[in-house]
Amino acid sequence: MENAFSDRITDVPKSFIREILKVTIDPSIISFAGGLPNRLFFPVKALQKASNDVFAEEGNDILQYANSEGYLALRQFIAERYRKQEDLEIPVEDILITSGSQQGLDLLGKTFLNEGDDLIIEEPGYLGAIQAFAMYRPRFHPVQVSEGGMDTVALGGVLNERQPKLLYTVTNFQNPSGISYSDGNRGAVADMVRDSSCLIIQDDPYGDLRFSGTRKISFKRLLPKNTVLLGSFSKTVAPALRLGWLVAPPPIMDKLIIAKQAADLHTNSLVQRILYRYLCDNDLDAHIATIIHQYGKQKETMIAAIKEYFPADVQYTNPEGGMFLWVTLPAGMSSMALFEAAIKKKVAFVPGTPFYVDRKDSNTLRLNFSCSDEPTIVEGIKRLGNSIKGLFYKQEIDRCLQ
Amino acid sequence: MENAFSDRITDVPKSFIREILKVTIDPSIISFAGGLPNRLFFPVKALQKASNDVFAEEGNDILQYANSEGYLALRQFIAERYRKQEDLEIPVEDILITSGSQQGLDLLGKTFLNEGDDLIIEEPGYLGAIQAFAMYRPRFHPVQVSEGGMDTVALGGVLNERQPKLLYTVTNFQNPSGISYSDGNRGAVADMVRDSSCLIIQDDPYGDLRFSGTRKISFKRLLPKNTVLLGSFSKTVAPALRLGWLVAPPPIMDKLIIAKQAADLHTNSLVQRILYRYLCDNDLDAHIATIIHQYGKQKETMIAAIKEYFPADVQYTNPEGGMFLWVTLPAGMSSMALFEAAIKKKVAFVPGTPFYVDRKDSNTLRLNFSCSDEPTIVEGIKRLGNSIKGLFYKQEIDRCLQ
Repeated sequence: MENAFSDRITDVPKSFIREILKVTIDPSIISFAGGLPNRLFFPVKALQKASNDVFAEEGNDILQYANSEGYLALRQFIAERYRKQEDLEIPVEDILITSGSQQGLDLLGKTFLNEGDDLIIEEPGYLGAIQAFAMYRPRFHPVQVSEGGMDTVALGGVLNERQPKLLYTVTNFQNPSGISYSDGNRGAVADMVRDSSCLIIQDDPYGDLRFSGTRKISFKRLLPKNTVLLGSFSKTVAPALRLGWLVAPPPIMDKLIIAKQAADLHTNSLVQRILYRYLCDNDLDAHIATIIHQYGKQKETMIAAIKEYFPADVQYTNPEGGMFLWVTLPAGMSSMALFEAAIKKKVAFVPGTPFYVDRKDSNTLRLNFSCSDEPTIVEGIKRLGNSIKGLFYKQEIDRCLQ
Repeated sequence: MENAFSDRITDVPKSFIREILKVTIDPSIISFAGGLPNRLFFPVKALQKASNDVFAEEGNDILQYANSEGYLALRQFIAERYRKQEDLEIPVEDILITSGSQQGLDLLGKTFLNEGDDLIIEEPGYLGAIQAFAMYRPRFHPVQVSEGGMDTVALGGVLNERQPKLLYTVTNFQNPSGISYSDGNRGAVADMVRDSSCLIIQDDPYGDLRFSGTRKISFKRLLPKNTVLLGSFSKTVAPALRLGWLVAPPPIMDKLIIAKQAADLHTNSLVQRILYRYLCDNDLDAHIATIIHQYGKQKETMIAAIKEYFPADVQYTNPEGGMFLWVTLPAGMSSMALFEAAIKKKVAFVPGTPFYVDRKDSNTLRLNFSCSDEPTIVEGIKRLGNSIKGLFYKQEIDRCLQ
């Protein structure tokens, strides 16, 4: 049977994070490993009311097959939000509702990538994007991102040497690193891409979760014809709705709709209507303000605990939003070894390795701060600090004994 | 921009049916073109109650990210139904919940097909399957189906000459033709496939909609290790739920889950719980009995009207279930020309052409009987009969004038 599978599926290993999350099901483990929004903020009552109202008022039509583009009113809401938030004029025809923004990545891979096509990915990069694109077997070109944005020297090198079709970016509070591109960096990247045939994919699931600093300029403004935007309601309303969207100009949208039809005909139309009703009857921005107030406090607590409990030569990002921060251990330390040690102290995280397209180990790790309360964060970081110190001393002893 | 797209997406034309359905939006047109279940039977009130109960009783957890395999209780319900209905023992681990069974087709294409791989498709065949598989650029081998099942001589030829990876079948009340494979034909097909490396995909969205005759044997019983089953709640409960499933043995399931994660992480988990609650609190079989009682009457009405109003040399299938029947015009007549003529008389159908992988025109057409009431069916078939006669006489006149 094994050799009956396609080459694409044989190449992709089981999700590493999925395997890690199995370890962390044990409730006695403090987990910074998940990538989940905090369940305490899901608007259960308001969605229940929205659902009830939709069933009561809209009748049988809400249960029939629907169009592939998505519910018009929901797409209009999204367009209006871009106008209000970023002064971007997005025609509603340019918006496709997707089954979570993960599906947007799959549809883009399907629409653009032939085997061997060149694709620029952030390093470290979003694992779900790596997995979705890997199905279409491109050649990945990782370009480093750090506080402030993308390494433009490395980007220039790839743009000069190859003809990359796609540049995948998470410009706000990136998963896994929490970093954001500065306005200057966005401008520089746009200038470099402008005269190429490369399309920028700006994936922005966390953009609304800003708890400090100011909103940055969108690639859609800098390069309107060469930018595809991805958005999601998973982090602002609830992941279970599986509702995201994709913004693309007409020639691309025509192809994406063909891909969407082949993939699942259309996104759940009942839930689209429930979400739209929720958005009409509730203040999304007020709801988001509640979330980010808490996430911001949790991040501050994690940063303070890191300062107190981690060795001084451990580096970390200090995000202005989102759900993650990124830790860099001293050179030569293994985050896989740290994971093994930390699990014994009942604390978990995701080692950096799966966020690189080509590494077997790394000295980096991702910490999630959205899902744990403040005392738990302090306790978990304390345990993790002890694990780091323990590993450090173990390495020193090993070195002395050599 | 055009040459930036992938080869797969450039090859696939816009959905023909989609274009036709745009024409039929005009409410004065009697449409036998759609592929929709009848909206009158959607259990709106019962789903509203189920939704309300799920929100009220299950709280925040129903809105979090969920596992890729799908909601365990719903998968257990499906396994139990296979046991009761077909005496098939399906381990729950072999069931994957998909975003409609259309997604199951996409995941199978992704998991199995390299470019140029050989794939057997029914002729005429389900358009959605052709579209989903076409994305992975296989070599299609159409094998004719007619009343009783698949042409085993032609099937033998393909199995001898090529090494097809997949054989795609809709064995019950096929879309578009309405035909079903007899038990004998199923046995013969299974015997031929048994010693090959070919996997049978048995897509069964209509199997529950049987209004006459008796249930036939499943390929899953005949070839348990070489069969993947696809099922759907779209025709028995409601399409907007976008809930289908896929049954595959463990080595295949492992790969399908990787493909599922990359495609959309998981199927809408809120709606999975709502559907499960609906299934617990309601009698699905009683609900289906109501639907098929009506569909059966509508089919009988359509057959009687065809006998009365169509010329005697027009052939048609007489399905024992499902939503469609298939009409074959006298040789040389064009169903595309008939479509043009019929639209002027305000009646629509889908010409057979898109259900073949390699034809520009055909003398066949698909008629849907699930969505029109009986007087409308009679009036529509009468108009269509007149259109056929008009086209026939026009052809005769053209011939005489040559």
